[in-house]
Amino acid sequence: MSATPATPPPFLASPEAYAELFDSVDTFLLDCDGVIYHGPVVVPGVKRVLALMRARGKKIIFVTNNATKSRRMYKTTFDKLGIEAHENEIFGSGYASAVYMSRILKFPADKRVYVLGEKGLEEELDSVGIKHCGGTDPEDRVFIPSMDFSYFTPDPTIGAVLCGFDSGINYKKLGKAFSYLRDDPNVHFLLTNQDKVFPTHGTFYPGSGSLSAPLVFALQGKREPTIIGKPNKPMMDAIIAEHQFDPARALMVGDNLLTDIAFGNNSGLRTLLVMGGVTHKDQIYGDKPSDILPTFVVESLGDLAVLDGQPAEATA
Amino acid sequence: MSATPATPPPFLASPEAYAELFDSVDTFLLDCDGVIYHGPVVVPGVKRVLALMRARGKKIIFVTNNATKSRRMYKTTFDKLGIEAHENEIFGSGYASAVYMSRILKFPADKRVYVLGEKGLEEELDSVGIKHCGGTDPEDRVFIPSMDFSYFTPDPTIGAVLCGFDSGINYKKLGKAFSYLRDDPNVHFLLTNQDKVFPTHGTFYPGSGSLSAPLVFALQGKREPTIIGKPNKPMMDAIIAEHQFDPARALMVGDNLLTDIAFGNNSGLRTLLVMGGVTHKDQIYGDKPSDILPTFVVESLGDLAVLDGQPAEATA
Repeated sequence: MSATPATPPPFLASPEAYAELFDSVDTFLLDCDGVIYHGPVVVPGVKRVLALMRARGKKIIFVTNNATKSRRMYKTTFDKLGIEAHENEIFGSGYASAVYMSRILKFPADKRVYVLGEKGLEEELDSVGIKHCGGTDPEDRVFIPSMDFSYFTPDPTIGAVLCGFDSGINYKKLGKAFSYLRDDPNVHFLLTNQDKVFPTHGTFYPGSGSLSAPLVFALQGKREPTIIGKPNKPMMDAIIAEHQFDPARALMVGDNLLTDIAFGNNSGLRTLLVMGGVTHKDQIYGDKPSDILPTFVVESLGDLAVLDGQPAEATA
Repeated sequence: MSATPATPPPFLASPEAYAELFDSVDTFLLDCDGVIYHGPVVVPGVKRVLALMRARGKKIIFVTNNATKSRRMYKTTFDKLGIEAHENEIFGSGYASAVYMSRILKFPADKRVYVLGEKGLEEELDSVGIKHCGGTDPEDRVFIPSMDFSYFTPDPTIGAVLCGFDSGINYKKLGKAFSYLRDDPNVHFLLTNQDKVFPTHGTFYPGSGSLSAPLVFALQGKREPTIIGKPNKPMMDAIIAEHQFDPARALMVGDNLLTDIAFGNNSGLRTLLVMGGVTHKDQIYGDKPSDILPTFVVESLGDLAVLDGQPAEATA
């Protein structure tokens, strides 16, 4: 801990403060769960705020570390919640991984990716024309009765191992992925994100970072993974490869200091923390504030709805 | 790296050096794979050395981090290899975990352990009368189609989560184990061992430490596991609880600096490194030696067979 505490960021609470910030931003990068909705419940006011952004010509990019859903699946989720969103505005860590592999790694067309992940991740690889195996293939979602991999013939076309959240994690997959990484230093090692946990049903369970931990641990000292998702740079590199925007007039909005706020800070963007998600106020304004602080804090993104000039009780 | 290199340990290679060491030891703690055998092949000379130890009244303790086999199963393995061994001489990290829970934690009789592990680990818990669930139960060796744990009713009698090597690792088990540890700080968190990899079929695959990494990672900063196996103290505490011996006249023999040699060193025992296992000579005698050094080095434990006075070509 530094002896000199950092100046705590301003807590915006007035229409004037909201307006000043809103007018200074052309591009809003928005975390989804905790900012736009909590599970099945849309955050009050947020629909009005999004409508206002569109009315004022702001660019919206939905940025999420969840790699289990493709943009198509996210669009369906937004539709069900009654939130206007377009596929090309959605940037999950699965799509970011696919874009990163395609545009930045220039992943060869004759190579394949061994996937630990769900259907949504496979869809995004398909969308950029990257061939893959593993993933949801039932043949790899089985238990092996012993540690015997003698049946296993390594596929020489594998050029990368990509790990996301995989509810079908098992020893066969871990062993195969490990053997590709163990045997060939040219096989890329990528994680969609390294979230410890994910929130669901009012609690939380092991997240993508935890499910890739066996490979990271087993290869420690030998291979370092490239981590795509927030707070890491590859996610921003992938977003910028698709959406050109002026960082000086962009704002990253999120509820998580370690992912969202660090992500914006690491890329030189201003950041806005919303409360009511995973961060407690004393992590910002307490005696021992976090090392990672946002530029601004608001109670909720929905509070900016007052800027639309409609009565406060207008339909959310 | 220290500017002053540590004095490299003596490399014993003469019958006189072997005899001096042998005579100074009453209790031999022997790692198994890499010292006694390599998979299905007994190390040449080792049977003669073990016979000599017995003839001279030495105490033998086989110490292995492998928690997938019980002492009973190990006995069968030794029998097949034609090596004399007795169940009470065998100390795997599964049995050590059971002994640690029973004797040191005084695990309550009305509580149960949620197990990530194999049959051998369950057998050892049975042997000390500790109740358990999870493990090889087919109900917990399934894939769950989503991250929905709403069907899951936590068992209030769970008092510990014990993780070993589990070829049936899956998200249901990880989620259940995580929820017990997340919800109750009184639930013990134990790992049989933290080996990154285990050697098999001439290569290696993710080990116990890698398979427990999801829980360790997900709980980082919230819960620290107690790690039983080599090089950690609980394994030695459990061995000493069963086998009283004079540490000054004991010797830990192993092929792995990070587990075997550190284990002996941490407990104030002399240590003997055998080559031909996982350690390379330049880790001891090279320009940048390991921070962990044994007291002595020999090429192979089998080389001590010359001490039995029989012709070198005597049956191994």
